[in-house]
Amino acid sequence: MKKNEISILGSGLIGSLLSIYLRKRDLNVTVYEKRADNRNQEYKEEGRSINMALSDRGWKALEKAGLKDKVLPLTIPMYGRKIHNEHGDTSFIPYGKEGQAIYSISRGRFNQLLINEAEKVGVKINFEHRIEDIDLRFNELTVSSPGNLLEKISSEVIIGSDGAYSSLRNAMLKQVRFNYKQQYISHGYKELSIPPTESGDFAMDPNALHIWPRGSFMLIALPNPDKSFTCTLFLPFEGGRVSFENIRDEKDLKGIFKTYFDDAYQLMPQLADQYFTNPTSALIDIECYPWMLNKALLIGDASHAMVPFYGQGMNCGFEDCYILDNLIEKLGTTAWELVFAKFQKIRKPDTDAISQLAMENFEEMKEQVADPKFIIRKKIEAKLHQLFPKDWIPLYTMVTFSDMPYSEAYALGKLQEKIMDRVMADPLITENWDKMDYEDIIDQLDKAKAV
Amino acid sequence: MKKNEISILGSGLIGSLLSIYLRKRDLNVTVYEKRADNRNQEYKEEGRSINMALSDRGWKALEKAGLKDKVLPLTIPMYGRKIHNEHGDTSFIPYGKEGQAIYSISRGRFNQLLINEAEKVGVKINFEHRIEDIDLRFNELTVSSPGNLLEKISSEVIIGSDGAYSSLRNAMLKQVRFNYKQQYISHGYKELSIPPTESGDFAMDPNALHIWPRGSFMLIALPNPDKSFTCTLFLPFEGGRVSFENIRDEKDLKGIFKTYFDDAYQLMPQLADQYFTNPTSALIDIECYPWMLNKALLIGDASHAMVPFYGQGMNCGFEDCYILDNLIEKLGTTAWELVFAKFQKIRKPDTDAISQLAMENFEEMKEQVADPKFIIRKKIEAKLHQLFPKDWIPLYTMVTFSDMPYSEAYALGKLQEKIMDRVMADPLITENWDKMDYEDIIDQLDKAKAV
Repeated sequence: MKKNEISILGSGLIGSLLSIYLRKRDLNVTVYEKRADNRNQEYKEEGRSINMALSDRGWKALEKAGLKDKVLPLTIPMYGRKIHNEHGDTSFIPYGKEGQAIYSISRGRFNQLLINEAEKVGVKINFEHRIEDIDLRFNELTVSSPGNLLEKISSEVIIGSDGAYSSLRNAMLKQVRFNYKQQYISHGYKELSIPPTESGDFAMDPNALHIWPRGSFMLIALPNPDKSFTCTLFLPFEGGRVSFENIRDEKDLKGIFKTYFDDAYQLMPQLADQYFTNPTSALIDIECYPWMLNKALLIGDASHAMVPFYGQGMNCGFEDCYILDNLIEKLGTTAWELVFAKFQKIRKPDTDAISQLAMENFEEMKEQVADPKFIIRKKIEAKLHQLFPKDWIPLYTMVTFSDMPYSEAYALGKLQEKIMDRVMADPLITENWDKMDYEDIIDQLDKAKAV
Repeated sequence: MKKNEISILGSGLIGSLLSIYLRKRDLNVTVYEKRADNRNQEYKEEGRSINMALSDRGWKALEKAGLKDKVLPLTIPMYGRKIHNEHGDTSFIPYGKEGQAIYSISRGRFNQLLINEAEKVGVKINFEHRIEDIDLRFNELTVSSPGNLLEKISSEVIIGSDGAYSSLRNAMLKQVRFNYKQQYISHGYKELSIPPTESGDFAMDPNALHIWPRGSFMLIALPNPDKSFTCTLFLPFEGGRVSFENIRDEKDLKGIFKTYFDDAYQLMPQLADQYFTNPTSALIDIECYPWMLNKALLIGDASHAMVPFYGQGMNCGFEDCYILDNLIEKLGTTAWELVFAKFQKIRKPDTDAISQLAMENFEEMKEQVADPKFIIRKKIEAKLHQLFPKDWIPLYTMVTFSDMPYSEAYALGKLQEKIMDRVMADPLITENWDKMDYEDIIDQLDKAKAV
């Protein structure tokens, strides 16, 4: 085993950013990636990307690695949700204060950039190297690559940033006292798209995340720099009229799109083609603990894959890297087990909180945003935040536009939710919301916090 | 793939009994067992058995296979719990009505008997055959055995009765939409023993399950036909004065045993030897769903390993076999997927319920049974059951001495628990329990059921 040799599994977004951080600390970093290097080709998303939305936590981590300015040109700011109802009417709900946005970015192009940057600082990336086995006693990887026999590689540290189906986690799963849960939700998703108009422009407002919420299912769309939108259709796998199981042919598909998503349907000339070609993918939530064994560590989706409904999966993974790097900064590169132990202890309550919020936000996205009262609720919270910027911060803002620990945001969010439930119970709220005693709401929150 | 060929993974208690059921339906049954055939040796428990306690569900399943009379001579009836306090005083709490008992049996000898019976009816058991890989698309096992190359075996049906660390379940774990949870509890266990007295007799009452409940930890003992007792010590792995981590030497051990288990300590001449030789084992709870993929099925601990505190793990596994066999009886041996689909749908709520009860019973065993009020509570429930045998059946009786679905027992138990909590809140209950209005309690239950 070579001292200061770090093996990172997976060159996805998290693995690439982490490799840059660690290389900058003068460590020898090798990344093993099972996929081929695709940087010479136009990136093919394989019809299964949910577009990414960068928010404050992600930007902060990129900034620390000196990458913010390089990433910014790849992004499109989205200042709020644009809700589409069945009649094609839309309403806009800002995500935060004026100027606050989340940033749409293509996973593929972003990943290419990070891999380039990693190589520039001296990270060695081995593409088409598949992990066949991991011996955790000796931190030894068994790796296969095209045309080569199996190779055994031992390194001081192994970090698994190899995603929801992590091979490092699979090795840990066989260890005694490793707690693990994988849970699939009832809904799957399918990627679709809205191309630019004939005149070469965006077909809808590019500075919003578009949502067609329909109770038990929904469609969303995020803008791309080429003026197309990447859409994601979330449906139950089975049951009911509207489910992947029950859309059997073009007639079914057309019927459902014309009924529920007609304005989008008019913008999707390739709908049937895409629908029947692109895969239907499942959505998984993963929790496990511990995240480490000796000098091996899980990070990002490998330790806490979440459903995508809070747009925090990547941001949370980047924050993992940021926090881990801070610990290394403080404790050095010789005390790996201490660094990892502190990391998992600090971080686990926060990833549990954001995973839970992501699950809950699915309900919000597909149900509540279609409710007129939901818009009032958001307006009241925005006004509270405007009047008392330090005393009332909407949950979405704490998660998205701050770096407050997710677990604190979660706890505070639950208190605020209870108070808002009471406020919204007023039958005249739709008329009166603007003339309420806002200070009294803050008092209620202070009281709740004191308990 | 050969029609009517059944491969069973694991020749443990569940696999052996299941093989007998299936062979009796004229199917070709082959069992693959990684361990060696130990029937020619004195069975060595390897210091990690929790003695088994057979109760009604287990007996019923054995009877259907024609095995009840053969198993009975291996067992010792235990009619209740014998609680030992710190001073060595004991009190006896019957498990049920007079004559009702659970039956202590050694896992090893029981398993030998079942394997013999399986071979007698024509089951082929391949010992020292390890499952290396399972291809679920073709129901194909890759099996290794001493001196042989890898062998590929395909069969119409594969049933995984291969326990908490099931290889069939590991193969299913990689399937999309397979939900899975493994959770270790904070406590581990270690096997110890109390030998017969010098005059060759039991050192304590053999017709009881002995418990030394101490709040955050406990010791239990079950009788063996050779007049010894198998003891199991349950302690937290870490933390506090009394934990496996903090018993470092004989002095620590002696101090703790003399303080908390002195009467048992006096009967354990080999304590230190056994303590420091026998392994400390972990306790796992496993839930997963679905239990099937095409014609492959998980059964017993492979699909629902539970902690051992309700004494139902084996009984529940046997009941699995009984229910599966009933479905085969009804639906035939050509509709495996239908049989398996019905089996998992019927059975999952029940195994969830008993797993949950087993987790909750740990609290009862180590805490409440040491509380004098707990004995009063049990007496009130026994009297209710005696006065109104159909209207009030204590939860323990429903689980242990009936074959009511576990999920129904669980739901009814929760209603009864609430009512008993109210009854026990009477500050004078210790004096008054025998003179209460028992009919009123039944009325309360009827009311609760009606809601």
